[in-house]
Amino acid sequence: MKIIETIEALRQELKPYRNQTIGFVPTMGYLHEGHLSLVRRASQECDIVVMSIFVNPLQFGPNEDLDRYPRDLPRDAALAEQAGVDFLFHPSVEEMYPNPTLTQIVVSKVTEPLCGASRPGHFTGVATVVGKLFHIVMPDRAYFGLKDAQQVAVIQQMVEDLNFPVTIVPCDIVREPDGLAMSSRNVYLSPEERKQAVILSQALFAAKKGLEEGEWSTADEVNRFVREMILTQPLAEIDYVETLAYPSLQPVDELKGQKVIVAVAVRFGKTRLIDNILHAGEE
Amino acid sequence: MKIIETIEALRQELKPYRNQTIGFVPTMGYLHEGHLSLVRRASQECDIVVMSIFVNPLQFGPNEDLDRYPRDLPRDAALAEQAGVDFLFHPSVEEMYPNPTLTQIVVSKVTEPLCGASRPGHFTGVATVVGKLFHIVMPDRAYFGLKDAQQVAVIQQMVEDLNFPVTIVPCDIVREPDGLAMSSRNVYLSPEERKQAVILSQALFAAKKGLEEGEWSTADEVNRFVREMILTQPLAEIDYVETLAYPSLQPVDELKGQKVIVAVAVRFGKTRLIDNILHAGEE
Repeated sequence: MKIIETIEALRQELKPYRNQTIGFVPTMGYLHEGHLSLVRRASQECDIVVMSIFVNPLQFGPNEDLDRYPRDLPRDAALAEQAGVDFLFHPSVEEMYPNPTLTQIVVSKVTEPLCGASRPGHFTGVATVVGKLFHIVMPDRAYFGLKDAQQVAVIQQMVEDLNFPVTIVPCDIVREPDGLAMSSRNVYLSPEERKQAVILSQALFAAKKGLEEGEWSTADEVNRFVREMILTQPLAEIDYVETLAYPSLQPVDELKGQKVIVAVAVRFGKTRLIDNILHAGEE
Repeated sequence: MKIIETIEALRQELKPYRNQTIGFVPTMGYLHEGHLSLVRRASQECDIVVMSIFVNPLQFGPNEDLDRYPRDLPRDAALAEQAGVDFLFHPSVEEMYPNPTLTQIVVSKVTEPLCGASRPGHFTGVATVVGKLFHIVMPDRAYFGLKDAQQVAVIQQMVEDLNFPVTIVPCDIVREPDGLAMSSRNVYLSPEERKQAVILSQALFAAKKGLEEGEWSTADEVNRFVREMILTQPLAEIDYVETLAYPSLQPVDELKGQKVIVAVAVRFGKTRLIDNILHAGEE
């Protein structure tokens, strides 16, 4: 595996592979099994796998965790190589933004609910950096984890609207043995917070079971059930609990026959965790 | 020359040429010598030349000339082929926008003065469609005429900020024998308007001469000179006359040593014409 720090060097390295299938896994590093599952899938489906590790300032709000976001390049490099990465792109902020960017990729509608409402500007930052990375790597296929389901929906919308020549491959959430969705931010949790955080997946699994059994007829009923279950944990502070059509992320009234996402964002102390489940709806 | 109407067909046609140099000339059709000079230059510098003809609704305001914008595909096809186009891409609005686009490429600062002030949303429409076309054609080099100097500045800013893998080639304005800048909109002019419209280039050429001779020290003095000269023609209604730094398009106070653009937009009856000259500044 080669570690590459400049755009120009990466373009040169990738030139010989332009007739082959290039898979791309964009990350912010501090890799966990979720990221590595994307790499393994990319390895199976592509000739060459490029991973980027870049903590993108553009997608962090002024009071968010940009400065303390966890970083460990030597560990990440070892894990990435083992999982099958061929080129690890690790640019500096100055390399990616030599001047303040005057250009933004702005996606509407699908960016408005959920994390888009809690984190203004977040998805403009995500879409803009992913657009830049797609132009730098020029991948055939790009792999994204469904823990960030709204991010997947935003990127798919952007790719479709702007005709990016890339196939987006959404991949299932990878979880700890007790159900907690893997996240680089899980390291922030105190032992007690970590213990209580398992309620997110438990509430979502219970919601999925209820949806499959037709227990509820409206989104509000699902939200109330999930909210109440999460609030049994005293350290949980709910940011949102929402049941929406997927991937449009528009409101649903009647659940019947709808593909929906149940998505949650919950704070434990200073740490904000997100999780979700998808329910296919009846045929 | 092949005429191609769908994105998928164009991608298939261009596949065999991916290892060669692809030149791209995006246009709205109704071709004149200005467009054809771009094609000739692309032919010299590239192995394959793709031209698009697409009157992009996104870049027209609600009271602008989208519906009456002149169109003549058979004539355009003959001219394009003669000048050296290999693939003429002529998509329908439905092909380019099968659904209303939720994604926009928004460029700030450089889009704000001149036509950006007179035509709100215009450059977002331009940047978005050019981004789409770049993803569809994937050119190595793209050719733009400097009559739309602000458009060139916007596209260059977008390409730099978003790392599009394309070189932008700005090309000189082509003029009628009497000096009027070539434009598809010139056909709108009545004989009397056409006669008076020559004042634009006359005023700009005089301004360039004055700048070279160091006649003025501030942008305001240049603007006043150009404005007064244009207003000698009774049918001329000035939209703007501006002298700005180029390509940043930011205000300049002192002219000395600055690369500047003197840009004008003037209405003759219902027809809005633009023109400009660049002055390199002293070394």
